Amino acid sequence: MPEPEILVFSAHAADFCSRAGGTIALYAKRGASIHVVDITFGERGESEDYWLRTELRSEEEAKRTRGEEARAAAAILGATIEFLDYGDYPLLIGRERLERMARVIRARRPDIVLTHWKRDPFNVDHEATADAVLRAAGMAAVPGFDHQGGKVPFPYIFAFEPTVPRNDATGFAPDHYVVIDEVFETKMAALRALRSQTKLVRFYTQWAEYRGFQASQSAGRAIRYAEAFQRYTATVSDRLPAG
Amino acid sequence: MPEPEILVFSAHAADFCSRAGGTIALYAKRGASIHVVDITFGERGESEDYWLRTELRSEEEAKRTRGEEARAAAAILGATIEFLDYGDYPLLIGRERLERMARVIRARRPDIVLTHWKRDPFNVDHEATADAVLRAAGMAAVPGFDHQGGKVPFPYIFAFEPTVPRNDATGFAPDHYVVIDEVFETKMAALRALRSQTKLVRFYTQWAEYRGFQASQSAGRAIRYAEAFQRYTATVSDRLPAG
Amino acid sequence: MPEPEILVFSAHAADFCSRAGGTIALYAKRGASIHVVDITFGERGESEDYWLRTELRSEEEAKRTRGEEARAAAAILGATIEFLDYGDYPLLIGRERLERMARVIRARRPDIVLTHWKRDPFNVDHEATADAVLRAAGMAAVPGFDHQGGKVPFPYIFAFEPTVPRNDATGFAPDHYVVIDEVFETKMAALRALRSQTKLVRFYTQWAEYRGFQASQSAGRAIRYAEAFQRYTATVSDRLPAG
Amino acid sequence: MPEPEILVFSAHAADFCSRAGGTIALYAKRGASIHVVDITFGERGESEDYWLRTELRSEEEAKRTRGEEARAAAAILGATIEFLDYGDYPLLIGRERLERMARVIRARRPDIVLTHWKRDPFNVDHEATADAVLRAAGMAAVPGFDHQGGKVPFPYIFAFEPTVPRNDATGFAPDHYVVIDEVFETKMAALRALRSQTKLVRFYTQWAEYRGFQASQSAGRAIRYAEAFQRYTATVSDRLPAG
Amino acid sequence: MPEPEILVFSAHAADFCSRAGGTIALYAKRGASIHVVDITFGERGESEDYWLRTELRSEEEAKRTRGEEARAAAAILGATIEFLDYGDYPLLIGRERLERMARVIRARRPDIVLTHWKRDPFNVDHEATADAVLRAAGMAAVPGFDHQGGKVPFPYIFAFEPTVPRNDATGFAPDHYVVIDEVFETKMAALRALRSQTKLVRFYTQWAEYRGFQASQSAGRAIRYAEAFQRYTATVSDRLPAG
Amino acid sequence: MPEPEILVFSAHAADFCSRAGGTIALYAKRGASIHVVDITFGERGESEDYWLRTELRSEEEAKRTRGEEARAAAAILGATIEFLDYGDYPLLIGRERLERMARVIRARRPDIVLTHWKRDPFNVDHEATADAVLRAAGMAAVPGFDHQGGKVPFPYIFAFEPTVPRNDATGFAPDHYVVIDEVFETKMAALRALRSQTKLVRFYTQWAEYRGFQASQSAGRAIRYAEAFQRYTATVSDRLPAG
Repeated sequence: MPEPEILVFSAHAADFCSRAGGTIALYAKRGASIHVVDITFGERGESEDYWLRTELRSEEEAKRTRGEEARAAAAILGATIEFLDYGDYPLLIGRERLERMARVIRARRPDIVLTHWKRDPFNVDHEATADAVLRAAGMAAVPGFDHQGGKVPFPYIFAFEPTVPRNDATGFAPDHYVVIDEVFETKMAALRALRSQTKLVRFYTQWAEYRGFQASQSAGRAIRYAEAFQRYTATVSDRLPAG
Repeated sequence: MPEPEILVFSAHAADFCSRAGGTIALYAKRGASIHVVDITFGERGESEDYWLRTELRSEEEAKRTRGEEARAAAAILGATIEFLDYGDYPLLIGRERLERMARVIRARRPDIVLTHWKRDPFNVDHEATADAVLRAAGMAAVPGFDHQGGKVPFPYIFAFEPTVPRNDATGFAPDHYVVIDEVFETKMAALRALRSQTKLVRFYTQWAEYRGFQASQSAGRAIRYAEAFQRYTATVSDRLPAG
Repeated sequence: MPEPEILVFSAHAADFCSRAGGTIALYAKRGASIHVVDITFGERGESEDYWLRTELRSEEEAKRTRGEEARAAAAILGATIEFLDYGDYPLLIGRERLERMARVIRARRPDIVLTHWKRDPFNVDHEATADAVLRAAGMAAVPGFDHQGGKVPFPYIFAFEPTVPRNDATGFAPDHYVVIDEVFETKMAALRALRSQTKLVRFYTQWAEYRGFQASQSAGRAIRYAEAFQRYTATVSDRLPAG
Repeated sequence: MPEPEILVFSAHAADFCSRAGGTIALYAKRGASIHVVDITFGERGESEDYWLRTELRSEEEAKRTRGEEARAAAAILGATIEFLDYGDYPLLIGRERLERMARVIRARRPDIVLTHWKRDPFNVDHEATADAVLRAAGMAAVPGFDHQGGKVPFPYIFAFEPTVPRNDATGFAPDHYVVIDEVFETKMAALRALRSQTKLVRFYTQWAEYRGFQASQSAGRAIRYAEAFQRYTATVSDRLPAG
Repeated sequence: MPEPEILVFSAHAADFCSRAGGTIALYAKRGASIHVVDITFGERGESEDYWLRTELRSEEEAKRTRGEEARAAAAILGATIEFLDYGDYPLLIGRERLERMARVIRARRPDIVLTHWKRDPFNVDHEATADAVLRAAGMAAVPGFDHQGGKVPFPYIFAFEPTVPRNDATGFAPDHYVVIDEVFETKMAALRALRSQTKLVRFYTQWAEYRGFQASQSAGRAIRYAEAFQRYTATVSDRLPAG
Repeated sequence: MPEPEILVFSAHAADFCSRAGGTIALYAKRGASIHVVDITFGERGESEDYWLRTELRSEEEAKRTRGEEARAAAAILGATIEFLDYGDYPLLIGRERLERMARVIRARRPDIVLTHWKRDPFNVDHEATADAVLRAAGMAAVPGFDHQGGKVPFPYIFAFEPTVPRNDATGFAPDHYVVIDEVFETKMAALRALRSQTKLVRFYTQWAEYRGFQASQSAGRAIRYAEAFQRYTATVSDRLPAG
């Protein structure tokens, strides 16, 4: 079986890395093609170290800084990246923006899409991204989209972690744990490249340990670090997964 | 990877076959070991053709008849079977019965358990079975059970279809479709062996077509027959499933 | 269309009257046959005025007193009544008790069953009754029950109000309002006959006004008093209800 | 009782016919007035046979073709029809569009409104329609709308089937089955008129059989074909429905 | 502990008073600072007595009238008030409107925010307000908002009553009852000042009695009037509340 | 305000300490009276180090060992403790056991009860405890219980953490964080006394940090360690909590 084509939609600059960086690195190591779409630079809401620096600040410079950081992180993980620059806090996505996202999906025909979880009531940009990705995937799949004819199958869509400090309020209940022990250092290196959010390194180390602990309990073997996902779409196969 | 050890808990005589017969046949064909535990013979509630026959009827004879039918169906599918004879409508499971079920799990250490869905408000025996299986799996896993020491990992547990005519009231939302095209005739042969419920053949043909239609839509390729499952427990892996 | 046969299962002595007394009176006035099954006398939990009286008290006498009150209330409404005396706080219903309830259903073949709502976390006897009634209705419907053969259709089952002071915690969302303006005085007379719970009269007057206000808003016409119900089972018809 | 005034809001050209065509035909046969509002022509997402034809294609021509088909289907069922042409995939409804929908409701004062179910995560146009219809019904009901004064009661609103292949993910749990045996051929004739979606005929035959099977189980009598609905709004009456 | 700073977001002119007027009066009496933001004047949907008057009517005049009423009510309760005039039925809130709301929050740094409940399907303006307030609170909290740097903690946010006649359909389950016995007359005086909705006085008296009855049951002491709230955000403390 | 009377129901020997040990120590330090009821010794399911020791093992000895450990832990925290010895995996609670629990509640009239969360599907003993505590609190409150007359108010009931490795599957969403920085060492000392579950120390340190991080985010100030709770019952007060 060839490695799958993977597409990641990230509301802010760093979400793809903090939530799914290990999984991305793991697939990249095996030779899979992974492309990240950063919907915004997270210039307002997810750049706290940037805004706390003493020198002059502007939204434009914040975007430039965060774009460089995200590009560096993606490169470390082994993924390509592009930026839609839709603006954060609030992120609002209308018709043209939806169509652009659908075109990205239609062009790449991913096997797997990774994005945000649908309920994240204290970080509504994440909800807006999840809604838009599901909607754009539906648009990309219909035969009349862009007058092209032909139906495209829905990709398998998985949600990564919602805002971790508010995790309990989101209904997120992972059904897949990806063991990231062998690429954990790569993920950490990528997180360190996201210099406007220095708190990520310590916090996502602790969280990967927690997810690893859960995975150990399920698997009955020692696992140190894991990332958690919940699927939106069903698997069609001639097997059920076994431990 | 060796074929998994599979254990199936069926509330009444025929449930394992009508809901998961195709999946059982598929695994048996590949050489997996599958064992069915029939919690009751379905003597009262799921033997309508038996009770409508004109000759003298008794619960004891109903059990004997249904036991023979279930044994024949299991043999056709390629599974072994045992009967706990806990009595249906109502099925009630107390401490000793739970411990017996836990012993079956502990002895077999299945990789995969198939059983009923937790909400089936118009067929409460199914709910009682699902509750008891989850509870017995927990009991089997703890180190102090039967003074044996040692922890046993929780198996991967999947629910098969709830009562189909009341399906909408149960919250069942399949996340796995198993394509059963290549063993569909085997499943039908097994269903025909369950002679006290003749309606099953026609109805589960229609339903397998519906699940096949859903699976086709998800997979983007032609699928004729499928069975649907919803997992109770999470997968731990170094991959996510791809289409 | 003849008037329907109605069966009411009430956890404690007075529940049938406080929740559905108006609806019972309305149907009785039209000549329908209504039978009430009081599962307990509510001797411990729903007899507060009885227990606050100064003279000597005993559970046996509490039951006798409450039985007389409930009999009087049922007579005023126009219903027959029987008592199962299963004991309240806690109400626990095992195999034999379930079978007795199923026999009542099978014998009467009701068109409509009224009973408690399934979630009432601060009055668990109500939950136990709802569970048992759904389960007994399933048992009564299967062909093997009591060796009788023949399937009996599930009746239309409706839940009446959960414990009103905790209403918000129950998820009860009425889908039927029965206007009881023309029998409201009859309901009040029946409530006054339940002398060990004097608070019922004032409180259920206020609550009937609230339900009447809701019904007015839905119907677009003046309604003073109503009772609210939520269905468990679907309607089969050649029409949809219209205002 | 006079036949009710019925208004149907359909996201795409064919939804009204595939989901509620039998119910519409049944009411039309009895002389009721039924008006269909097609929000879009389904030109992109629900016209697969159109887009797969070899000749030159355009969105404008797709709309014209689908409009003719929908007009023919409505005529066969006995309903009038109009088109709002709001554009599908994505369907987005802002203030002016909402106000136009509210004006349609206010002008017709329907007793019954049929439309989509509120959750249909893989066909978000359906969700957008359901949201807009509930909102427009609220706008139409308030006294200040269009400076007209006077309150209009909320109609009884029912949801028809969500996207059938994704049905389990929507939480749709029908509480009304309309038996359509006597008009089934009329519904099929109307479906055949929708020539850009040829798959509808076979699929909605199978689905009507499934809903008929469910209705049979509930009603305890033989029913061949049914359509299923779930209400949004409560009934106010002096009766409860009986079998 | 000093009295908290309180900010109230009200979809229509009178919502703050009918739902939280007692709580506002109670805090004002103790010297707290309370500011009300009326998102709309409720000119279309919540001014029924205005529209039913015989003289010439216009939306502009409706707004002026309702603004005066709301100002009078706020003064009686002891709160300041401002109006955003976003237009009701439908209330739609885009980027600029969100940013204005966020600026109000950022400027006032409230300890407590009171607003609508997130589900109110038959009064969607209330849902739009709840969504916007949660979103604006998130925007106000991020360091990059308005280029100001510095994080602002999320306030404690509480929902007041959804549309009372549709209460059961909203999932509102109060977790805080505020006893308003000592300020009930002040609340009634404020409600009487809202002359375009005369029905409020009688109805919210009845409802405050119902909430008082619930509170009595929980507290085990006599309470006559209460207002009910459900929190969106968690408490951080060195204690748990005790009765 | 005097310190509240607190009663803790713990399914297994150590649950009270791992979940609420910090909160217990905090209240004890202030002079509150806290009593722990251990429903079982956790002899089978929660004594893994005991069962893995090499010497001869028996359930009786396991109980004795765990009882000593729990007594030591309670003493360190400053609470009294008793054991009901109902047997774990499976824990089943019938009428007499419920009545005994209700008598404990009635005798102590606690202001606050701490116990398990109602959904813990992979540790069903916890669910059984939560159900029984809610039911026993209802029984204790009714006037006819034990022929004593007089109503007792429901205590404020809070749930502590469900099984942490399965936390996401339980729906637990904390609404109260108790900051335990000042007693964290006391909690750790108590956990170390529970020698048959050595993993608790490391794991609950990590988890207290996570809860502390969440609490910091809500409170906007540095918090190192916290415990999380979700309430079952509403607060009645003349205030809302403020940060």
